[in-house]
Amino acid sequence: MTLTATQLKEFDELGYLVLPDCFAEEEIAILRSQAEGIYDSEREEVWREKSGAPRTAFAAHTYNKAFGILGRHPRLIEPLEQFFGEPVYMHQFKINAKAAFDGEVWQWHQDYGTWKRDDGMPQARAMNIAVFLDEVMPINGPLMFIPKSHQHGTLEAGHDKATTSYPLWTLDKTMVTKLVGEGGIVAPTGKPGTVLMFHGNLVHASPPNITPYPRKIVYLTLCAVSNHITKFNRPEFIAHRDFTPIEACEDDALLQFARKYRQAAE
Amino acid sequence: MTLTATQLKEFDELGYLVLPDCFAEEEIAILRSQAEGIYDSEREEVWREKSGAPRTAFAAHTYNKAFGILGRHPRLIEPLEQFFGEPVYMHQFKINAKAAFDGEVWQWHQDYGTWKRDDGMPQARAMNIAVFLDEVMPINGPLMFIPKSHQHGTLEAGHDKATTSYPLWTLDKTMVTKLVGEGGIVAPTGKPGTVLMFHGNLVHASPPNITPYPRKIVYLTLCAVSNHITKFNRPEFIAHRDFTPIEACEDDALLQFARKYRQAAE
Repeated sequence: MTLTATQLKEFDELGYLVLPDCFAEEEIAILRSQAEGIYDSEREEVWREKSGAPRTAFAAHTYNKAFGILGRHPRLIEPLEQFFGEPVYMHQFKINAKAAFDGEVWQWHQDYGTWKRDDGMPQARAMNIAVFLDEVMPINGPLMFIPKSHQHGTLEAGHDKATTSYPLWTLDKTMVTKLVGEGGIVAPTGKPGTVLMFHGNLVHASPPNITPYPRKIVYLTLCAVSNHITKFNRPEFIAHRDFTPIEACEDDALLQFARKYRQAAE
Repeated sequence: MTLTATQLKEFDELGYLVLPDCFAEEEIAILRSQAEGIYDSEREEVWREKSGAPRTAFAAHTYNKAFGILGRHPRLIEPLEQFFGEPVYMHQFKINAKAAFDGEVWQWHQDYGTWKRDDGMPQARAMNIAVFLDEVMPINGPLMFIPKSHQHGTLEAGHDKATTSYPLWTLDKTMVTKLVGEGGIVAPTGKPGTVLMFHGNLVHASPPNITPYPRKIVYLTLCAVSNHITKFNRPEFIAHRDFTPIEACEDDALLQFARKYRQAAE
């Protein structure tokens, strides 16, 4: 999958791109059911909300076949290789649950702020590319982006270890208010299979989910290989230390896997 | 203001009505600034979130002139007199802040569940009619309604005193999931001056507000006079004991007040 000149210009200006209909329901269905199985298991990679509901599962590409394929999928790898102009490796891989009724807030932050401070990543030459496993609606805790905020570089942040179960470098209210005054807020929604890519310095957050609708999103954090991290403070399943360039699989690999899996189950 | 047969039919089916453009910006602006003054004051009627941000201000119609006029406004009183077929009195009056960044959740509940259990209100012949003081957007903690849920009467509920600073009779996840399966969820949005009326048994909630956009809504709880409460457990400023029928003021009373107030300030 190759980004057009128009898409690259839009990304440059706003800091994000929404790519609907990237994955078919047949491909997403297997990921959705596998994710639920992962959340139900007791693993150190599965982090929970204070209520016990799943919050995020790290590194599923290393222990689950379907997510292993997703982590090499050309529809995700190629756009970022194109953007960075070099091969990429997997810095982080997570499936965020935003569970029905219990999914908690992710406070306002920049991803690169954490990768820089905690992991010693030299530059903002990494970004998240996300795949919706459930429908993301305005009401079930969508991601909120502040368009254009990536243009400010890495902003001052405080290390919030209290609000949720996951420590995060977060921006203060004054800064968020200023940035929203400039760029507003957008909350991209879409069917399962929608893909979002967003700049490592784009300021974003997501509100709690109080509805019965779960809102699972997979995030691949892909980093230009030449920009690999230099500090190993966090567990390896959160900030990977294998900088091998990812070789994309075939475009139909996930579809074929889903079909075989279904046949085997029948 | 009189409701049409079509509006009454829609209300009967869905349990709520959205009435855009009921109040002009000139009328809303004075209420908005007065509300902020009330939140800044130390009064027992002003309840706060755990963060200290305002959550709700009760009974402002009894101590503030502009809200006193709103509490007798024909655009709010007349539709409910028409609906109940008799005069109404003010059971509760509150200005909910849903403050920028700090506004917390209101859990899934029915209003009449509280009026019945706590206040001994005989029947669901009371309801909230709400006026937006700020723009209500999908992102700043809108009310979420479960359409048609009012048709189930008063549902089982538990008394939640822990989640927020305000005790509430709330529904459990199983019941909410069932009702949402039948009716879905709507989150009416609109400009300042929009009015919402909703049945006392309509199940609703509102999520936290993590944006810099405040979302103030005034709620008049109007009760048919013959259906007045019979238990006086809660403070009088929360559940009023004056059952005198409200006599509506002139339709331009708030506008005239706003103009005089502005002239006096200039």
